Amino acid sequence: MALSPDIDGTRLWSDLMTMGAIGGTARGGSFRPALSGTDAEGRNLFAHWAREAGLAVTVDQVGNMFARREGSDPSRPPLMIGSHLDTQMPGGRFDGVLGVLAGLAVVRALNAAGIVTKRAIEIANWTNEEGARFQPGLMGSGVFAGLLPLEEVLARTDRKGLSVRDELSASGYAGTLPVGGRPIHAYLELHIEQGPELEETGTLIGAVTNSSWGCSGFIEIRGENGHSQTAAMSKRRNALVGAAKLILAIEEIGASQEPAGMVSATVIDSWPNNRVNIPHLAKLSYVVIHETAEGRQAIIDRIEEAATSIAAESGLEIETTTAFFRDRLDFAPDMLGLTVKTAEKHGFPVMKLPTLTAHDALSIHMVAPVAIIFVPCRDGISHSELEWCEPDHATAGAQVLLDMALDLANAE
Amino acid sequence: MALSPDIDGTRLWSDLMTMGAIGGTARGGSFRPALSGTDAEGRNLFAHWAREAGLAVTVDQVGNMFARREGSDPSRPPLMIGSHLDTQMPGGRFDGVLGVLAGLAVVRALNAAGIVTKRAIEIANWTNEEGARFQPGLMGSGVFAGLLPLEEVLARTDRKGLSVRDELSASGYAGTLPVGGRPIHAYLELHIEQGPELEETGTLIGAVTNSSWGCSGFIEIRGENGHSQTAAMSKRRNALVGAAKLILAIEEIGASQEPAGMVSATVIDSWPNNRVNIPHLAKLSYVVIHETAEGRQAIIDRIEEAATSIAAESGLEIETTTAFFRDRLDFAPDMLGLTVKTAEKHGFPVMKLPTLTAHDALSIHMVAPVAIIFVPCRDGISHSELEWCEPDHATAGAQVLLDMALDLANAE
Ligand SMILES: [Zn+2]
Ligand SMILES: [Zn+2]
Repeated sequence: MALSPDIDGTRLWSDLMTMGAIGGTARGGSFRPALSGTDAEGRNLFAHWAREAGLAVTVDQVGNMFARREGSDPSRPPLMIGSHLDTQMPGGRFDGVLGVLAGLAVVRALNAAGIVTKRAIEIANWTNEEGARFQPGLMGSGVFAGLLPLEEVLARTDRKGLSVRDELSASGYAGTLPVGGRPIHAYLELHIEQGPELEETGTLIGAVTNSSWGCSGFIEIRGENGHSQTAAMSKRRNALVGAAKLILAIEEIGASQEPAGMVSATVIDSWPNNRVNIPHLAKLSYVVIHETAEGRQAIIDRIEEAATSIAAESGLEIETTTAFFRDRLDFAPDMLGLTVKTAEKHGFPVMKLPTLTAHDALSIHMVAPVAIIFVPCRDGISHSELEWCEPDHATAGAQVLLDMALDLANAE
Repeated sequence: MALSPDIDGTRLWSDLMTMGAIGGTARGGSFRPALSGTDAEGRNLFAHWAREAGLAVTVDQVGNMFARREGSDPSRPPLMIGSHLDTQMPGGRFDGVLGVLAGLAVVRALNAAGIVTKRAIEIANWTNEEGARFQPGLMGSGVFAGLLPLEEVLARTDRKGLSVRDELSASGYAGTLPVGGRPIHAYLELHIEQGPELEETGTLIGAVTNSSWGCSGFIEIRGENGHSQTAAMSKRRNALVGAAKLILAIEEIGASQEPAGMVSATVIDSWPNNRVNIPHLAKLSYVVIHETAEGRQAIIDRIEEAATSIAAESGLEIETTTAFFRDRLDFAPDMLGLTVKTAEKHGFPVMKLPTLTAHDALSIHMVAPVAIIFVPCRDGISHSELEWCEPDHATAGAQVLLDMALDLANAE
C-alpha cells in the first residue's frame, strides 16, 4: 500500500472550485491579480490547507510561499512542486492554480499512505507569475533563480503607482526569508496546456520538451495635439489613427505566421485621452512568439517595416523598440523521460510538445532540472474566464505529478 | 479723454506670457488642467492682478472667480467679461486666457482714464471650461446658468478618482458664494477663433453669429479574453482590433465631411491592457461637429453603420451610444451688431462667422445676452502648445472688448 498512493480527485476538484470562488467572476473566472486583496485571500487559503496537511509554511522577501513536508534526511535539497495562484484580470480557475493545488493533493496522498520520502517535498506558490498587474511576470521565480534583482522588483509599480514592496506589506506577504540561494533537487510544474494540441489529438499528458522564442515590442507614435472640434481633418496628425493602422498591420502579420508563430498588439495608451483633443501621443505593446529565432526576427522586421511606411504616409513619428527577449530553453532529458515513463505506466496517452508561453519552470530551469507536465484545456483557451480543465484530466495530471515526486524525492 | 480709454497692449502681452509660464511646457504651451496645482497658481496670479487693479475678488461654490469693479449704481446688474484660465493637457497660452486677461486690460484702461461706469464690470474666470480633466466641460458656467446641478458636478471625478469637490478644497478655491441665480446685464467673451477663417481672409475681428450642431459618441467593443502567446490567431476576438477598425472608419467619415463637419475618435480605453492578454473590451469616444442638424445625424448614422459591419465581419459585439447633444444657438442680434459697429469704428476688418466649438458664452447665453468676439490664431491651431495669437491682434480684440464694455456698462 505504501508504494501506490492515489490522488483524491474529488478533493482536488473541490479545492480548484473553492480557490476559483475567491475573486470569482460572474462568468466563471477569477480575478486575483498579484498582491491584490483577493490574491491575499487565495494565499491565506493555501496556507490554511497546507498547515492542515501538516506542512510548514514560509514566505520569502518577494512573497514566494513554500509549504514544506519534511523528508527523512532534511539535509538533502528538496524536491519542489510549484506554480502560481495569481490570475489575469480576469483569468481562469486553472492556469497556475492546478499546479499549486495538485501539490497539496500529492502530499495528502503521501500522508494518507503513511509515506515519508528521503528528501523534503516543498510546494511553491510563486509571486506574480502572470505579470498582469506588475511587470515583468515570472517575478517571484525570477528573483528566486537570480534572474531579477530583488530591489528592482520591489520598486516596480502598477498603473496606480502602488509598488510591489508596499503591496507585499499590505497583503501580509512581505516575508523575511532570503529569496533563493539554496539548492533544489528537481522542480515539477503541472499546468494546463493553454493550446489545443492535447485536446485535438486525444492525448492526456504532455511532456514539455522546450520553450519558444519570444519577445515584447513597444511602439511610440507621436503626432500633434489640436482641437478635435475645430482643426481641419486634412491637417490632423492624430497619433491614435497611426496606432490603429499599426494594430491592424500587426494582427495581419500575426495571422500570416500561424501556426509557427503569433503576434497581437495588446496594450494601448493614448494622450491626452479626452474628447476635445486630437491625440498627440499613443503607445502600443505587443508580444511575439515563434518556433524559431529567425521567425521571431522576421516578425519584428515586418512590424518595423509597417511602422516605417505608416510614418511616411501619415506624417506621424513612429519609434519601435523591443525587449524581454526569451530564447528557447531545452528541458532536462531525464526529467522529460520520467514524465513519459510515468504517464505510460498509468496507460495515459502522452506526447512530447513545446510550450509557447512562459511558466515559472523557465526561471527554475536556471538552478535545477525541471519537468513541465501539461494536461488538456478546452479549445486551447486560457487567460480567460472560460478556461476549463476536465476533472479527470486534473486528477490524471496530479497522479503523474505524485508518482514523479515520489520517485525524485526518494532519489539519492 | 475720459471717452477714449486705450488698451495697454504691451502690458496685456506681458500678462499673457506670464500666465503662460505657469505650468509652462518646453514647447511653449501651458499645462493647467482644472483645479490642478498649476491652475491654482494661475488663479492666484489672476486674483493678485485683479486686486492690484482695485477689484474685489469673490469665489463661488464651484470655484468660479469674479473680479468686480464697482459701478456708480451698484444695484444694477453688472456687465460681465469672462472666459477661462484652465488649459488642455497640454494646451496653449491663449485659449481662454486671452478672454480673462483682456478683461483686466479693460479695467486698467478705465482706471487710467478715471472712468466710473454706471453698472459694475465683473471679470469671470469660469471653472473647468476645457473638460480635459473633469467632464463635462463648461462646468462652472454651466452651473452658473442652471444647466448643471451643483451637487452632481462636485461629485465628478478625474481618471485618478479625485473629485471636483476635493480638488476645489485642495486648490483653495472652494468658495462660499452661491453659484449663479443673479442677473447679468450682458456678457462678453473675447477668444481666439480656433479655426483658420479670420487669418485666411485677413480679417481682424470675428463677430460670432451662432454655435454649431455637436454631440459626443461612445462605442463599446466586446471580444473575448485569451492568452496572447498561445491562442490561435484565427480564433482571437480581439476588442482592440475592432477598436482600430472603428478609429479608421471614423477618421474617414470625418474627412468626407470637410469643411461642413468633422469627427475623430479621440479617447480609447482597453482592458485588461497587459501584454500577455488579448483585449476583451475596448471603449472609444468621439466628438461630432456639423453646420447642420442633418449633417450631425448623418455622421452618427454612418458611424453606426460602420460599427454594424465591423461587428458582423469580426464576431465582436459593438454597442454605440450618443450623448451631450449641443444644438445651434443664435446669439443676440444687438450684441452682434455692437461687435461689428465697434470694430468698424476702429477700422478693424470684421466678419460674421459661427463658432464650431463651445465656449462659456454658450452657457451664459441662457441667462443673459452674449457676444463672442474672435481674433485670428495662427494656422487655426488650438488645444496645442503651438497655439499663437499675434500681439497686435490680442490688443485689437481687447480694444473692441473695452469699447463694448463701456457702452454696455453705461446702458440703462
Ligand atoms: Zn500559468
Ligand atoms: Zn476656450
